[in-house]
Amino acid sequence: MANEPSDEDKLIARYFAPLAVHPGALGLSDDAAFIKPPAGCDLVLKTDAIIGGVHFFPDDAAQNVACKALRVNLSDLAAKGAKPLGFLLSLALPGDVGERWLTSFAEGLRSDAVLFGCPLFGGDTDRTPGPITVSVAMFGSVPEGTMVRRAGAKSGDRIFVSGTIGDAALGLAVRKGQNWKLGERHRQHLLGRYLLPQPRNALAEAVRTHACASMDVSDGLAGDFAKLCRVSKVSAAIEAAKVPLSDAAKAVVASDPEMLATALTGGDDYEIVCTVPPHKADSFRAAAQAAKVAVTDIGVVEAGEGVTFLSANGAPLAFKHAAFSHF
Amino acid sequence: MANEPSDEDKLIARYFAPLAVHPGALGLSDDAAFIKPPAGCDLVLKTDAIIGGVHFFPDDAAQNVACKALRVNLSDLAAKGAKPLGFLLSLALPGDVGERWLTSFAEGLRSDAVLFGCPLFGGDTDRTPGPITVSVAMFGSVPEGTMVRRAGAKSGDRIFVSGTIGDAALGLAVRKGQNWKLGERHRQHLLGRYLLPQPRNALAEAVRTHACASMDVSDGLAGDFAKLCRVSKVSAAIEAAKVPLSDAAKAVVASDPEMLATALTGGDDYEIVCTVPPHKADSFRAAAQAAKVAVTDIGVVEAGEGVTFLSANGAPLAFKHAAFSHF
Repeated sequence: MANEPSDEDKLIARYFAPLAVHPGALGLSDDAAFIKPPAGCDLVLKTDAIIGGVHFFPDDAAQNVACKALRVNLSDLAAKGAKPLGFLLSLALPGDVGERWLTSFAEGLRSDAVLFGCPLFGGDTDRTPGPITVSVAMFGSVPEGTMVRRAGAKSGDRIFVSGTIGDAALGLAVRKGQNWKLGERHRQHLLGRYLLPQPRNALAEAVRTHACASMDVSDGLAGDFAKLCRVSKVSAAIEAAKVPLSDAAKAVVASDPEMLATALTGGDDYEIVCTVPPHKADSFRAAAQAAKVAVTDIGVVEAGEGVTFLSANGAPLAFKHAAFSHF
Repeated sequence: MANEPSDEDKLIARYFAPLAVHPGALGLSDDAAFIKPPAGCDLVLKTDAIIGGVHFFPDDAAQNVACKALRVNLSDLAAKGAKPLGFLLSLALPGDVGERWLTSFAEGLRSDAVLFGCPLFGGDTDRTPGPITVSVAMFGSVPEGTMVRRAGAKSGDRIFVSGTIGDAALGLAVRKGQNWKLGERHRQHLLGRYLLPQPRNALAEAVRTHACASMDVSDGLAGDFAKLCRVSKVSAAIEAAKVPLSDAAKAVVASDPEMLATALTGGDDYEIVCTVPPHKADSFRAAAQAAKVAVTDIGVVEAGEGVTFLSANGAPLAFKHAAFSHF
């Protein structure tokens, strides 16, 4: 019998093997990959999947789908203070996905693997009767025992959030036809923030060396921070007016004040929310500035239970849905 | 706002958190998990997914689906000589999957996590408009530099295969309605081998300390071993009559001799094929016996290209399809 590669092997060799630049990935020619973890470090492990029609639009560019699949995982590593090491990819493709889609998808993986320093270590490619499903398992490292957890926030800690909140949720609404008479620049800003998360991996080391507790904001600031408070056994008071909004989000809220709740509870921010002891707050701000990531102090951790968002007059805001949930 | 867990968090807490027994999994209450890799070891990384209607039947018991998802990955670790450390799970579920399915699925994960020593480290659960899709990322360890690769087979090596070959491919045919006038015991044997792989993790250490090259047989012995030969830049002569068949498979081939080709090229064996230098063959047999895994010498590695299966009279067999491929 001739030793001819199968079509599946050809697909892997053509699109994905060029991305497997780490020697332990063996050019994707083996059953598994290997890596020597950095000395004195813990491995940090994360998996998250995105599904066509659920987490992205079927007509999103394949390159953006690839980047989103990596970035939703990279965002978790950033929040945990971890440095990316690499990823595994499990890809389920409908029969009509062909060469053009795969070429663009592979280019998205390649560019982000370089940008974030996370090479491809291995993968699995299947046909599915369902939608495109991209599962990524991402692994990173932290010096032993230093992964920043959700549990750990203490009464008195300042609450910091990176970047701006709510853009992606508003961008999704724009994508679905909302208008708010926005100018084109604001429209594009919001659409872009939904399409392509900007994970804050540049902030990881500052988080690791300053924060008591941290998580990435992926299912809405209000609900996600409530999870952090729950496992930390604390409460929090957040000043809604201090939550950083982009100019585009501000324009939306000016047009429709109810959209503030969407911004504070909608998903897909991929920002970091963390708590920092007061005596480390200035140093954290300086480290964030050095990392070129904006951070904003939005409130304080307190004893007790529950997260309260305070309006400008000090009255608590109420939300219908605190967070996005698939179930 | 009250700190009420979401339905998604409740689902995770109820079905999956009890499986996250490693302290680094943080009871699945965090964004990520951490693990300290064993000192002096490389990590071995593998991901494989199974999809309803593609890799398993929609009416397979959820417990078996869970076990299959883990075992197709465990089989790769075994072939690489690696010891399992744990896994990440990415689960996409149609809307009609409920409590009963999840309870059974979680029980399958739990029992195999205990049996194979691979606890759950983290996961992701989404709703999908498509079929059930279970992606597992499995990680294991080997002493540094000792992962057994596909590349490495040398002319003169003996070719060993574990267990029996072809049962699962024949079992799939039975599942699809083939009969061959088999007795019930043989029918059940073949069906069972398709439904639930038996990965040879007990053989991993013997493979690691004896084999020059190794892989798991998942897409058919003929095609898979051709891949190993291709990256090892060798050829091989396999005596078809020596390939170990179960009594059930023998009964099928006695009824329909053409089914030998199905046995040798069909998928889902999850056995190990490896090459062992002649001077280590006896020691490998003894180590396999101590591990209680049957191994059979089926042929020899040679210089050149291509894998030849020889019939009893020494003539080469020809196959229409050497291996299963999704593409």
